[in-house]
Amino acid sequence: MSTEDKKYTSVHYSDYLALDKLLSAQNLRSEELGVPAHDEMLFIIVHQVYELWFKELIHDLESVLHSFEQGYVDERNIRVAVQRLNRITEIQKLLIDQLRVMETMTPLDFLDFRNYLFPASGFQSFQFRYVEVLLGLKSENRLTYNQAPYISVFSKEQREKLINLEAGKSMLEVVQDWLERTPFLEFKGFSFLPAYRGAVDRMITREKAAISQSSILTDEEKEMRIRMMGDTDSWFASVLDEKVHAQLMQEGKCKLSYRATVAALLINLYRDEPILQMPFMFINKLVDVDAMLTMWRYRHAQMVMRMLGRKIGTGGSSGYDYLQATAGKHHILSDFHNISTLLIPRSELPELPEDVKKGLNFYYSEKHKI
Amino acid sequence: MSTEDKKYTSVHYSDYLALDKLLSAQNLRSEELGVPAHDEMLFIIVHQVYELWFKELIHDLESVLHSFEQGYVDERNIRVAVQRLNRITEIQKLLIDQLRVMETMTPLDFLDFRNYLFPASGFQSFQFRYVEVLLGLKSENRLTYNQAPYISVFSKEQREKLINLEAGKSMLEVVQDWLERTPFLEFKGFSFLPAYRGAVDRMITREKAAISQSSILTDEEKEMRIRMMGDTDSWFASVLDEKVHAQLMQEGKCKLSYRATVAALLINLYRDEPILQMPFMFINKLVDVDAMLTMWRYRHAQMVMRMLGRKIGTGGSSGYDYLQATAGKHHILSDFHNISTLLIPRSELPELPEDVKKGLNFYYSEKHKI
Amino acid sequence: MSTEDKKYTSVHYSDYLALDKLLSAQNLRSEELGVPAHDEMLFIIVHQVYELWFKELIHDLESVLHSFEQGYVDERNIRVAVQRLNRITEIQKLLIDQLRVMETMTPLDFLDFRNYLFPASGFQSFQFRYVEVLLGLKSENRLTYNQAPYISVFSKEQREKLINLEAGKSMLEVVQDWLERTPFLEFKGFSFLPAYRGAVDRMITREKAAISQSSILTDEEKEMRIRMMGDTDSWFASVLDEKVHAQLMQEGKCKLSYRATVAALLINLYRDEPILQMPFMFINKLVDVDAMLTMWRYRHAQMVMRMLGRKIGTGGSSGYDYLQATAGKHHILSDFHNISTLLIPRSELPELPEDVKKGLNFYYSEKHKI
Amino acid sequence: MSTEDKKYTSVHYSDYLALDKLLSAQNLRSEELGVPAHDEMLFIIVHQVYELWFKELIHDLESVLHSFEQGYVDERNIRVAVQRLNRITEIQKLLIDQLRVMETMTPLDFLDFRNYLFPASGFQSFQFRYVEVLLGLKSENRLTYNQAPYISVFSKEQREKLINLEAGKSMLEVVQDWLERTPFLEFKGFSFLPAYRGAVDRMITREKAAISQSSILTDEEKEMRIRMMGDTDSWFASVLDEKVHAQLMQEGKCKLSYRATVAALLINLYRDEPILQMPFMFINKLVDVDAMLTMWRYRHAQMVMRMLGRKIGTGGSSGYDYLQATAGKHHILSDFHNISTLLIPRSELPELPEDVKKGLNFYYSEKHKI
Repeated sequence: MSTEDKKYTSVHYSDYLALDKLLSAQNLRSEELGVPAHDEMLFIIVHQVYELWFKELIHDLESVLHSFEQGYVDERNIRVAVQRLNRITEIQKLLIDQLRVMETMTPLDFLDFRNYLFPASGFQSFQFRYVEVLLGLKSENRLTYNQAPYISVFSKEQREKLINLEAGKSMLEVVQDWLERTPFLEFKGFSFLPAYRGAVDRMITREKAAISQSSILTDEEKEMRIRMMGDTDSWFASVLDEKVHAQLMQEGKCKLSYRATVAALLINLYRDEPILQMPFMFINKLVDVDAMLTMWRYRHAQMVMRMLGRKIGTGGSSGYDYLQATAGKHHILSDFHNISTLLIPRSELPELPEDVKKGLNFYYSEKHKI
Repeated sequence: MSTEDKKYTSVHYSDYLALDKLLSAQNLRSEELGVPAHDEMLFIIVHQVYELWFKELIHDLESVLHSFEQGYVDERNIRVAVQRLNRITEIQKLLIDQLRVMETMTPLDFLDFRNYLFPASGFQSFQFRYVEVLLGLKSENRLTYNQAPYISVFSKEQREKLINLEAGKSMLEVVQDWLERTPFLEFKGFSFLPAYRGAVDRMITREKAAISQSSILTDEEKEMRIRMMGDTDSWFASVLDEKVHAQLMQEGKCKLSYRATVAALLINLYRDEPILQMPFMFINKLVDVDAMLTMWRYRHAQMVMRMLGRKIGTGGSSGYDYLQATAGKHHILSDFHNISTLLIPRSELPELPEDVKKGLNFYYSEKHKI
Repeated sequence: MSTEDKKYTSVHYSDYLALDKLLSAQNLRSEELGVPAHDEMLFIIVHQVYELWFKELIHDLESVLHSFEQGYVDERNIRVAVQRLNRITEIQKLLIDQLRVMETMTPLDFLDFRNYLFPASGFQSFQFRYVEVLLGLKSENRLTYNQAPYISVFSKEQREKLINLEAGKSMLEVVQDWLERTPFLEFKGFSFLPAYRGAVDRMITREKAAISQSSILTDEEKEMRIRMMGDTDSWFASVLDEKVHAQLMQEGKCKLSYRATVAALLINLYRDEPILQMPFMFINKLVDVDAMLTMWRYRHAQMVMRMLGRKIGTGGSSGYDYLQATAGKHHILSDFHNISTLLIPRSELPELPEDVKKGLNFYYSEKHKI
Repeated sequence: MSTEDKKYTSVHYSDYLALDKLLSAQNLRSEELGVPAHDEMLFIIVHQVYELWFKELIHDLESVLHSFEQGYVDERNIRVAVQRLNRITEIQKLLIDQLRVMETMTPLDFLDFRNYLFPASGFQSFQFRYVEVLLGLKSENRLTYNQAPYISVFSKEQREKLINLEAGKSMLEVVQDWLERTPFLEFKGFSFLPAYRGAVDRMITREKAAISQSSILTDEEKEMRIRMMGDTDSWFASVLDEKVHAQLMQEGKCKLSYRATVAALLINLYRDEPILQMPFMFINKLVDVDAMLTMWRYRHAQMVMRMLGRKIGTGGSSGYDYLQATAGKHHILSDFHNISTLLIPRSELPELPEDVKKGLNFYYSEKHKI
């Protein structure tokens, strides 16, 4: 059949969706063993739905990653990336809300078939691990689980896939590369970092003076306000000072390179310049994805606690404690969250030279603006 | 292998969930035709997730239906039924929210592969039709679709299943039977209907008199308030008067029998009596399920409108108009909604005789209450 | 006190939020009348929360409207507009979900105090009407309510505000003006409309030929596929033909001018060009706001139905029927939804000349691209 | 005016809701200081909405608490309590989702007015503290905040209210009292605890034997399965053994008395007996309320992190770290979560004697069952 003709092949909903396969994939252990438990169907379907969504997450994440892998990221692709990351967060909301469906099965209902599942466990979800590695979680930063590497529960082929994936560039890394290439840190005679440093200095000096001279603050209040400023001050230091940053990198306290951090800061501060609008949205969405993942881990831990109390999970782990801990420890993109610490009010921002502004705007606007 | 030993067979997450089958069931037409469209993956997965949830809905609905099919419904089963209907509504919330995920695909993205799907369409979802029939939607009450019976898009085997299902008792019918058997309409000398009728009469008479005599209402206001009362009055009439109800049944304006309607009313009014608490919750959850289904239809129509505008759908139907119309027309349990019209304030309710109250309470409470 | 010193005035959470005022504003009629009804508190608070959110909606909508009112819309403002419209949709989700909270009050609970509220009604919400007028709903397009103009329930001052607001430019109108000013319909020798028309013609001709010649389609299938094409064809006609569009405008079947419709179509089709990315997002968010409003109306009607059945509401209206009808009739921005009908696959789109592409890109990219 | 006439006073929507007060309670500091920041309106309104919902939470929680305070809890009240706790969880979902609205304000937008709010802070929300104390959080179990007691930020009057509230019985305590009064631990010759202990023993002994004898398990697998059993075993011990429980109480590791814990376990295991259905739902809903509160704390901490990074909050605290920690530490009803650990499969449950079953059923059912 010609390709043209293939296009006209009649498609039926149930063939297209492979419903025969899909709807025959629920095999209840409890039924097989002759002691049917009504809620095992729910248990299976909830997990299957998770896996289907994970497949979509991977599909979208990989497409975004690939469009950033090249040396140059076309502006057109950033909008598409924003749209896909947004899709991912919408799916993540479902993943979180779906736990409510799981919780309609009470702990007692679960006990009707739980024993027959040993040692199956969510720890054996290959796709979930794949998502984590894709985003940038490294083996050495993982919590260990029963003293064994996380990878040990997978088949040889799957282990290789995960190892290769981790060897390549993750989302965190391609985004870092892209940020480091930003031409706007030194642009048409405008140097961002010294300008920002100056603004921070002026702001802190002026604020401290104003606080000291205020006639309405008590000494205690003055002290408190200055203390707050001071702490922020030391945080700023870590970015303004490349050496301090290098130190933090070495200690594993941050993961994003000095130059990429500064670039992300610039994008946040000047996000309203046309050429930075999409990059700003992109970074923001990436932080959303990471935050939702953390939220899902936490909610998941809560659900496991509720279902099993402090019982040992079917995977042999003390499920709740492990899961709870990953919510904090497996936070992948936390450096982007921390950029908030470095922001200063718009009114304090150094004004961009006209020439720079023009360079950040549209070709059309500059030529044709009325 | 002995059954006992089978219990100890090691289970792996990916075998248990048949992930090989599940994750190889996404066959993109656009890829097959050599013109890959990124978003077709989403399109397939969204629909597959719908079908998985539909399977669970059917699993739960059938279990509830079967527990009501017998001549006698054990009180123990009503709690289970409430729990399962509650699960269904939690799933329905996901079904509705999931449309937001679908909407992350823009209309232009859809056009990249839409033409290759002809004539596949959601109208060909067997499971969705099954849910409708299970709840009580009758062929004669369906909107026709391109002049053909809805059943014509299915295989012979599927058609037979739907016909047999419709021939049997639906949820609406088994619940009606159960309500009709309620012993409390005439119980230990207490006749509910005359008591309720008397209360309604007293309330309306007293209110009308008070309104007429009020010194602060204008004539216009009096007239308005009395008019409102009057209209409600005529609605009450249809339930208080068996003949009027029979007439409405014949005209297709209501579907629930006279006796079942009165029983549902009694349960609503005296829901705090221990023996009526669960039945009240059950009816309430049933109404939730129906309302969520209607909401889903409406949201679905809105999404189709947004995706296709007023284009003809791949199923050959004017999708939006049809879907929009079903939200109203395929409302299955609307009679339960209408019971609100018949409620009267608790303060107007006839007090139950002590003997009756005792009969509606626990054996234990009566014997042992301190 | 100097302004500088005022900045340092200590602020307490409860003063800042005026909690004394806020938390003393719940006056239960049932308590005042000596017959306290527990759920009246919920009833009041739910409505007060609605009104607070409405205030925020107005605050955001007005800011967006004002930034579009001028003759020229700075690209910087469009991102801000997108952010604020996105906020509005997030609030609208809460408004919809909040109905679930209301539904935790059963109809019988409502009857405990409902009679004391006459004739108060949601129809008397000034802010809600304000939002509608702001978006572009005109008096003549409103459903009448008890034969009286919707405005009659308000104070003189409020009536004047609504009349003045309607006399000025609404969101629909300022957006239309902005679209009409788009320079890209005729740009550097590229005329969008003829190019689009040509593409549509080629696509339809080619498809019809291919269908006719197909060896695998039955005659019936061919006829069906061609019929579908034909219908879309006639829809395209209404945009391609300015006269047909003028006719539809006159009949009230569409509200958006010819030129603005074509501009919105262009933005949708070429949304990936950098200068059109934000305008595309903006239009998309505007459609979201409108769709959510429609969804809210529908859900609200459903809730009223459930609470009151077909009883006449305290406002003297047959609440459910009216509300239900507004969901369809008060749809303000429906023309933007209909643009989906006019889209054609990307692969059919006329390629933009290099010169045009450059004009739609950044100044920087063109000068410095590596 | 007579009370009868007062009922007929016309009520207008805006008077009823005190909209004059409500909508004039948004005083932007940034406007007052002459540097208006658009998003301060959102900031104020979001917090005001929180406070309105807190008022409703308190209204509902107090009503539930009061209905349990008496020596005897009428079965009728338990259904009402379930309904109100359910309402609370629906409100809590909004409280959590509302954070998404807050997050539509970016960190940079917040900086436009953040400095003017010092030292206002959510730590100064009296109502939130009231909710915590009402549920059962004790001063000694609170994390300290800047070394000062949490109560120090309130007015004298508010401090007294909180101290008095803490001196009285909290929800945790009244529920404990109610559970301890359960007559079914020793009922008609059936002693729950020995029966349960026997079932646990039999189950563990049998399972261990079966595992040891299994022909398909490896030694390692056997060891793992037996280890899992063992751990659970030791958990069971703490409930089966009153002395161990007393020890845990003393160490602050659990808060619920021995007898109440056993009663809650009985209710969970025999929840299908009619008289235990509502108590089971009640306990379940209480756990929901607690879990949602924990979830809110966590989400809130995440939002603060995102808004401020690791900046010191306006209240002078290191906001994120404190909030994050409260999610774990301020968990009030965790003992109810832990009951899951003690559940055993239904098939292992000792069958209740006929006489006992009858005592847990309805008076009517026993007398009239067909």
